[in-house]
Amino acid sequence: MLIVLHPDVTKPQQDLIEDRIRELGFTPHAISGAGRTAIGITGNKGAVDPGHFRLLDGVADCIPVTAPYKLVSREVKREDTIVDVAGVLVGGPAIVVMAGPCAVENEAQILASAHGVAKYGASFLRGGAFKPRTSPYDFQGLKQKGLELLAKGRAETGLKVVTEVKDTETLAAVAESADLLQIGARNMQNFSLLEAVGDLRKPVLLKRGMSSTIKELLMAAEYIVSRGNKQVILCERGIRTFETMTRNTLDLNAIPMLKSLSHLPVVVDPSHGIGIRSGVLPMARAAVAAGADGLIIEVHPDPDRALSDGMQSLNIPMFAELMREVEKIAHAVGRTMHKMPEHQRSR
Amino acid sequence: MLIVLHPDVTKPQQDLIEDRIRELGFTPHAISGAGRTAIGITGNKGAVDPGHFRLLDGVADCIPVTAPYKLVSREVKREDTIVDVAGVLVGGPAIVVMAGPCAVENEAQILASAHGVAKYGASFLRGGAFKPRTSPYDFQGLKQKGLELLAKGRAETGLKVVTEVKDTETLAAVAESADLLQIGARNMQNFSLLEAVGDLRKPVLLKRGMSSTIKELLMAAEYIVSRGNKQVILCERGIRTFETMTRNTLDLNAIPMLKSLSHLPVVVDPSHGIGIRSGVLPMARAAVAAGADGLIIEVHPDPDRALSDGMQSLNIPMFAELMREVEKIAHAVGRTMHKMPEHQRSR
Amino acid sequence: MLIVLHPDVTKPQQDLIEDRIRELGFTPHAISGAGRTAIGITGNKGAVDPGHFRLLDGVADCIPVTAPYKLVSREVKREDTIVDVAGVLVGGPAIVVMAGPCAVENEAQILASAHGVAKYGASFLRGGAFKPRTSPYDFQGLKQKGLELLAKGRAETGLKVVTEVKDTETLAAVAESADLLQIGARNMQNFSLLEAVGDLRKPVLLKRGMSSTIKELLMAAEYIVSRGNKQVILCERGIRTFETMTRNTLDLNAIPMLKSLSHLPVVVDPSHGIGIRSGVLPMARAAVAAGADGLIIEVHPDPDRALSDGMQSLNIPMFAELMREVEKIAHAVGRTMHKMPEHQRSR
Amino acid sequence: MLIVLHPDVTKPQQDLIEDRIRELGFTPHAISGAGRTAIGITGNKGAVDPGHFRLLDGVADCIPVTAPYKLVSREVKREDTIVDVAGVLVGGPAIVVMAGPCAVENEAQILASAHGVAKYGASFLRGGAFKPRTSPYDFQGLKQKGLELLAKGRAETGLKVVTEVKDTETLAAVAESADLLQIGARNMQNFSLLEAVGDLRKPVLLKRGMSSTIKELLMAAEYIVSRGNKQVILCERGIRTFETMTRNTLDLNAIPMLKSLSHLPVVVDPSHGIGIRSGVLPMARAAVAAGADGLIIEVHPDPDRALSDGMQSLNIPMFAELMREVEKIAHAVGRTMHKMPEHQRSR
Repeated sequence: MLIVLHPDVTKPQQDLIEDRIRELGFTPHAISGAGRTAIGITGNKGAVDPGHFRLLDGVADCIPVTAPYKLVSREVKREDTIVDVAGVLVGGPAIVVMAGPCAVENEAQILASAHGVAKYGASFLRGGAFKPRTSPYDFQGLKQKGLELLAKGRAETGLKVVTEVKDTETLAAVAESADLLQIGARNMQNFSLLEAVGDLRKPVLLKRGMSSTIKELLMAAEYIVSRGNKQVILCERGIRTFETMTRNTLDLNAIPMLKSLSHLPVVVDPSHGIGIRSGVLPMARAAVAAGADGLIIEVHPDPDRALSDGMQSLNIPMFAELMREVEKIAHAVGRTMHKMPEHQRSR
Repeated sequence: MLIVLHPDVTKPQQDLIEDRIRELGFTPHAISGAGRTAIGITGNKGAVDPGHFRLLDGVADCIPVTAPYKLVSREVKREDTIVDVAGVLVGGPAIVVMAGPCAVENEAQILASAHGVAKYGASFLRGGAFKPRTSPYDFQGLKQKGLELLAKGRAETGLKVVTEVKDTETLAAVAESADLLQIGARNMQNFSLLEAVGDLRKPVLLKRGMSSTIKELLMAAEYIVSRGNKQVILCERGIRTFETMTRNTLDLNAIPMLKSLSHLPVVVDPSHGIGIRSGVLPMARAAVAAGADGLIIEVHPDPDRALSDGMQSLNIPMFAELMREVEKIAHAVGRTMHKMPEHQRSR
Repeated sequence: MLIVLHPDVTKPQQDLIEDRIRELGFTPHAISGAGRTAIGITGNKGAVDPGHFRLLDGVADCIPVTAPYKLVSREVKREDTIVDVAGVLVGGPAIVVMAGPCAVENEAQILASAHGVAKYGASFLRGGAFKPRTSPYDFQGLKQKGLELLAKGRAETGLKVVTEVKDTETLAAVAESADLLQIGARNMQNFSLLEAVGDLRKPVLLKRGMSSTIKELLMAAEYIVSRGNKQVILCERGIRTFETMTRNTLDLNAIPMLKSLSHLPVVVDPSHGIGIRSGVLPMARAAVAAGADGLIIEVHPDPDRALSDGMQSLNIPMFAELMREVEKIAHAVGRTMHKMPEHQRSR
Repeated sequence: MLIVLHPDVTKPQQDLIEDRIRELGFTPHAISGAGRTAIGITGNKGAVDPGHFRLLDGVADCIPVTAPYKLVSREVKREDTIVDVAGVLVGGPAIVVMAGPCAVENEAQILASAHGVAKYGASFLRGGAFKPRTSPYDFQGLKQKGLELLAKGRAETGLKVVTEVKDTETLAAVAESADLLQIGARNMQNFSLLEAVGDLRKPVLLKRGMSSTIKELLMAAEYIVSRGNKQVILCERGIRTFETMTRNTLDLNAIPMLKSLSHLPVVVDPSHGIGIRSGVLPMARAAVAAGADGLIIEVHPDPDRALSDGMQSLNIPMFAELMREVEKIAHAVGRTMHKMPEHQRSR
């Protein structure tokens, strides 16, 4: 249930309402929008009786929430959520681009990537330090050293850092270093990890599982938000289907569905979504045309020598072309491209 | 194999080459491009020995074709095929829009649809006269009467008519009446029907089967083209996956893949692709951004009373908005919107 | 709706009831079970008012049918349907096995197959004469000649013949020659073909489409039965999923689901269902253990030289072993193996 | 690569060989079979040069291993692995049945379940104490208390305990209490958890992910075995497909594929695999007929009041019938049902 507060509610009134919720054994979640403040209630089994709250001072309305995802739903919060990642706003009018290699391989590679993508307008440097790999014998990432190289890339370019956190053991190290914590597709229903990032106050990029439904993605986001961390960005990265010509099937249908059901921003990963270099640019354009708030793109200074996912990585000139093309689409849908402020760049 | 001819080849030389191909038990298919003429060879099992042709007068080169789809492949014809449907060019610089109801229901409905979609820039009127339906008890279309009503819509507006042909029995009637023959998703591997439309010289819109791979779609097109009908337009309309929130999963990855593997034009059906009215506009934008040559959209003057597929049909004002939005995307990717010449409209 | 008749209903009473149904614009379908006769009503939109029938002489009860498939549902007919194919009963206590090559290739091959599978207990000879193929350049079958060779195999062994009918054009020829008409997976929703076989009085083996749901399979059967042909055998042959190691994913879940929803017999094709020779025997056992009424198995006297599907074909000794193993499972689930009567064999 | 040792190799010779492997930067894994001892090599990138080993004393042969899963492959170990779980052998001639409720709910429920399933021949009590749930608001299990109740069920009946371990945080507690550690479908690619159980010497039941391929399941098992824990049991529990009538699509094809590619035992979960009570028995029969080494079945003393998954749970009499039916299939495929020795039961 959602308790909508009067515009002129006082702090003591709100406290009283929240206490009442706790007394009943539920959990209150204050949600502030442009036009109103509301309190979401979770922890109930079945419907909550609005009679408990309707007559309390400061309560304007009690609205039942029908979706199984509550705090992330548009029913509970009508305004778009804008996630502030170290000053970069994701979910606002500007399209935000995250770019970099699949895995951090060495200093030269990560710095070349960082300077290259920064030059053409990326706001984030991506790159895996802790890599989940299907085979135990594959390259698992540079780990702590990888985090340090990403930080060096950030220091030299002003880019923000997004990198994957693959387990609770290494969460503290990644959270210390990254600006945006990526939960990978294989971990979308690793509920212990979701709870752990939910307990932090650090923005999270939550990738859709390979065979997770849109509803399950929203439920996974609900795990994080219900622990108090409201800074969640959803990411569509392709699903598993019978089609084998492409690595995955990028489900752009998910964008209008997610935007209508939830207030959270949506970012798209066309690199994994199609898995073939020449298809990344058209699918990046399509994602923005469908309403995505941002893109995450694999870029490598020398893709043919990449340790992983080289087949889907762009080189720097291809990335530059992608940015020019995407900007035209952004304008066509009434949006802009995010630009890093001058003082943050090329430090 | 592909035999590329000298730019100055003579007609008798070409005839001799084709005779030689037939003598060996194969079939020649002349393919004219902007820069060259070539002859594709089919009917062979295994590789053809280029020694048979290399020394013949007029032969410039012999190129092995590795794809299992031959005549529809870029290997055989590098230039984009532009299909001329009664004067409307599909596959050229202009985006072509086909619009109208799922099924022809009655005269008032089809004329209101035709005038409505023509007003806002559609070039084709779509509408089912012979409807394949999952249940034998569902409305199966107005049949011959439906074809007549579509023709009336064409006469009043100048729109071209695209409608589904569902079997060989009714093919002659549909081909007599329609400008563009639609092969539906369930018939994509109805090889007898493919062969029958391959024997006509009438343009075909070939929809991808619900669980057909991109390669199988190209093989189905090859069935038609190998019979001599080169006027094939491919159509992505969504595939069947585990996701149940949307009717299908629109596989826009298929666009860059098809455009790189084949010279045939590609049209997208976002109405079936997402199956939810509010998602059609963003997915139409995305399709054009991904490189589609056209769109086919379900539009009904009163969608809530439609006999079929009302949930995914736009009304006329929504279609008008879609056309404005799609035009911006078309310009962003360096294309235009097809406009019907004045003399063809509103007759 | 289903009108259940009194046990002692008279012919004139039943005629009157059927006339009344036709007067209302619906279609009556008489259904005889062991314990009762009933009349199914189709052609209605929405519920039929039982008031029209309840008071007529001979009517015992009026039962609404909730499934979208009506005539094939258990609601309408509780007893198992047993399909009599030229004297072989499919759907009774005995497991029926159909076996033979993917395609009829030549006389030696088909006769060797027929004698081989007859020797070890098959009741049907299978083999494609008209082959639907993904590529227009692949072997399409011996056509009429293939039908003749199958008939020769029947004449020599007493086996019944099951072969695919791929279009309405060749239906008459196939129906003339075969004992059981197979509708292939790609044609499961070729509604014109379903209607055409529905107009015959010849048993039909209806294969599930590669991406058709169980409900769609039942709706396709309804197309046939609603035209008056009640002799339909359903066939599970594997569905298309993300798994690529096997050719298809054999959905044995479909067996208990189909048996509980419908009275029609169910046969399983493990050869296409797994697509790998060594897996056919265990999956054949599993199918019978799950409740299948029969099996259809690809057997070739020399699988490594087969023109199609050799990888999944058994040779004769492997088929002999399969029959021995399946018989044990049949006994374990309280069933027997169908044996051809002596006078029908080895003529 | 696999180094096969001479039958009469000495301990010092084997030590020398293993030292040589480590010197080269690789990891040796000794593998003992009935007829031979071999040493698997992992940690290499690309092929290992057999020249390093061929001339060492005690080396009989050097065999390249082509599968990406090495230690779990039949190439490396031809004999079936039999996992000994506290005295119960899984993977031998006897079929082992694990049964119990989805979740441990309270003492009465778990004891009624334990006594009920023990009476009819189960060897293991299953039940979730730590439950991963799609929604953060659903019942998450009794946690530590649940483990204690399972132990009580074991003490009273002699059944072994299998329960899910959902994260590394609770692994120690679960490993302390359970006889067999279940890794759930959502965690099949939680590589940190796989590594953690790989470091234990406790048997593991590894469930296939909902959209994981057979190859990915083997790679996940390789994660565990490569850390030294060789006691892994694979579990097929249904995959996600387009079919919505059943909860999942039980992929019994996986059984013959896994048994031919790997030496590890395979158990099947028909309860999740079909998700409908009436379908569990036929699918349990089918699993054993396809070659499964065991079953895991949801049983609840009062399924209609179960807190989770009641729709697919059997009651005790249904379980009794299942055991009788499965036993017949076991005999038909030349196997027996595992019986707990008298002294272990009903303590």
